[in-house]
Amino acid sequence: MHFTSKLNKIIDLQNSVLCVGLDPDLNKLPNTLRNETDSLFKFCKEIIESTASYTCAFKINFAFFEAEGTKGWDALERLVQIIPVGVIKIADAKRADIGNSSQKYAEAILKKMDFDAITVSPYMGTDSIAPFLQWPEKGVFILALTSNPGSTDFQQLKTENSTLYLEVAKKANGWNTNKNCGLVVGATNMASIKKIRKAAPELPFLIPGVGVQGGSLEDSILMGADTQGKSVLINASRSIIYKSSGLDFAEAAASEAQSMQQQMNEIRNSI
Amino acid sequence: MHFTSKLNKIIDLQNSVLCVGLDPDLNKLPNTLRNETDSLFKFCKEIIESTASYTCAFKINFAFFEAEGTKGWDALERLVQIIPVGVIKIADAKRADIGNSSQKYAEAILKKMDFDAITVSPYMGTDSIAPFLQWPEKGVFILALTSNPGSTDFQQLKTENSTLYLEVAKKANGWNTNKNCGLVVGATNMASIKKIRKAAPELPFLIPGVGVQGGSLEDSILMGADTQGKSVLINASRSIIYKSSGLDFAEAAASEAQSMQQQMNEIRNSI
Repeated sequence: MHFTSKLNKIIDLQNSVLCVGLDPDLNKLPNTLRNETDSLFKFCKEIIESTASYTCAFKINFAFFEAEGTKGWDALERLVQIIPVGVIKIADAKRADIGNSSQKYAEAILKKMDFDAITVSPYMGTDSIAPFLQWPEKGVFILALTSNPGSTDFQQLKTENSTLYLEVAKKANGWNTNKNCGLVVGATNMASIKKIRKAAPELPFLIPGVGVQGGSLEDSILMGADTQGKSVLINASRSIIYKSSGLDFAEAAASEAQSMQQQMNEIRNSI
Repeated sequence: MHFTSKLNKIIDLQNSVLCVGLDPDLNKLPNTLRNETDSLFKFCKEIIESTASYTCAFKINFAFFEAEGTKGWDALERLVQIIPVGVIKIADAKRADIGNSSQKYAEAILKKMDFDAITVSPYMGTDSIAPFLQWPEKGVFILALTSNPGSTDFQQLKTENSTLYLEVAKKANGWNTNKNCGLVVGATNMASIKKIRKAAPELPFLIPGVGVQGGSLEDSILMGADTQGKSVLINASRSIIYKSSGLDFAEAAASEAQSMQQQMNEIRNSI
């Protein structure tokens, strides 16, 4: 089954478009965990177990694991194995390089570690992305318009016929022959989300930037989802995983995830 | 000492602008090494020891280590420690993400692992690059124009006033307040290298694409170096490290590195 079908099937089965972002900052973990060995793994394991029923996907941010060196990389490899089969596993790694290097990244992350999907940066163009797209069942979310202030520097530059982020969206639409290409679309500019949806009607959107970064949940779903309220993943990281800094962090995360799932479904049902 | 001064000092001391790229593909290692444990580390260690006298820098391609998972990451951490102090250590990692994630990547790679420099992708803009630039002694090579075919997809798009890769070069010039910002400039289009040098007169260029990828060595140095024949690093990976596939791979690499150093110096002396 190709990635987009798999994603939409899981959205149905889980009745959720929530993606929980795992960005485990050692300095923000509950005191009781912070000084334990293997704390990143233990923290994320509890978050995964407590929130999995409410989510469609987990997005693991590689930066926070690489920050702990070999130990962090080892935790990452074990973590991806404990995510339930019925939930999408996204490697938030923002890779891409010339072809033979991208091939190595793709094999490592999508095959050996067995993530279902990865985020990649489009700057180096088609042959830097192609190795990630070779397996129809594996998804590739291309950065189009991100949610950070620096998105104005290049992504929003006018080109001869368009704007850079729309050029990326159109190109990604052409890369979608295996029905496994998606886009990262920040929640911070609703008119832009609408334009990207028009340029790439069938590509799944991974939308960060609600929650701590302040984007509107309602508008993100209304502008970003397809006509059936699917092909969209709304990511929330810090607002869920750090909901409580106490011993009840996993319960608090579950409660917040459930609440977000419900809010999202109300909006989806209104489409 | 800020990075650009350090780089140019090492170019003088080593009398070399050669950067040896370590892209150790397990499938391409000599038979004798391929099946040993810790083969990536052993192969690179021999290459480093045999070529260090002829080089200004080693560039370690993270993709080839991540391909081996935790073991590969562990090899990478040990490898960076055995590169001689008088040679620049570049992490070819092509990272960049929103600010708090880039901060984690920057700490991990430039501080904990203690690389001297890193390659980053500009697509997410200023705040995604800023964390890497915070230490004046650490260099940040921004992808401007790469040497692969896909560089035409976005990098060479015309913008309202310029071309995307020149917009990146100009922006990077503005990011150079700590004198530690550089550019990755592929060797495959000489007119473009000249334009980038004009847009960013003082930034060091890391130039891949000579050797296996076919760019002209002479033109790359003539267009890319500053008026003193410095502020430039010419990278060669496969043409050096796989010069021989036999037991003499380290000697063959040394001989090729020495030959390239000499060719480069003849061209530099003609400036």
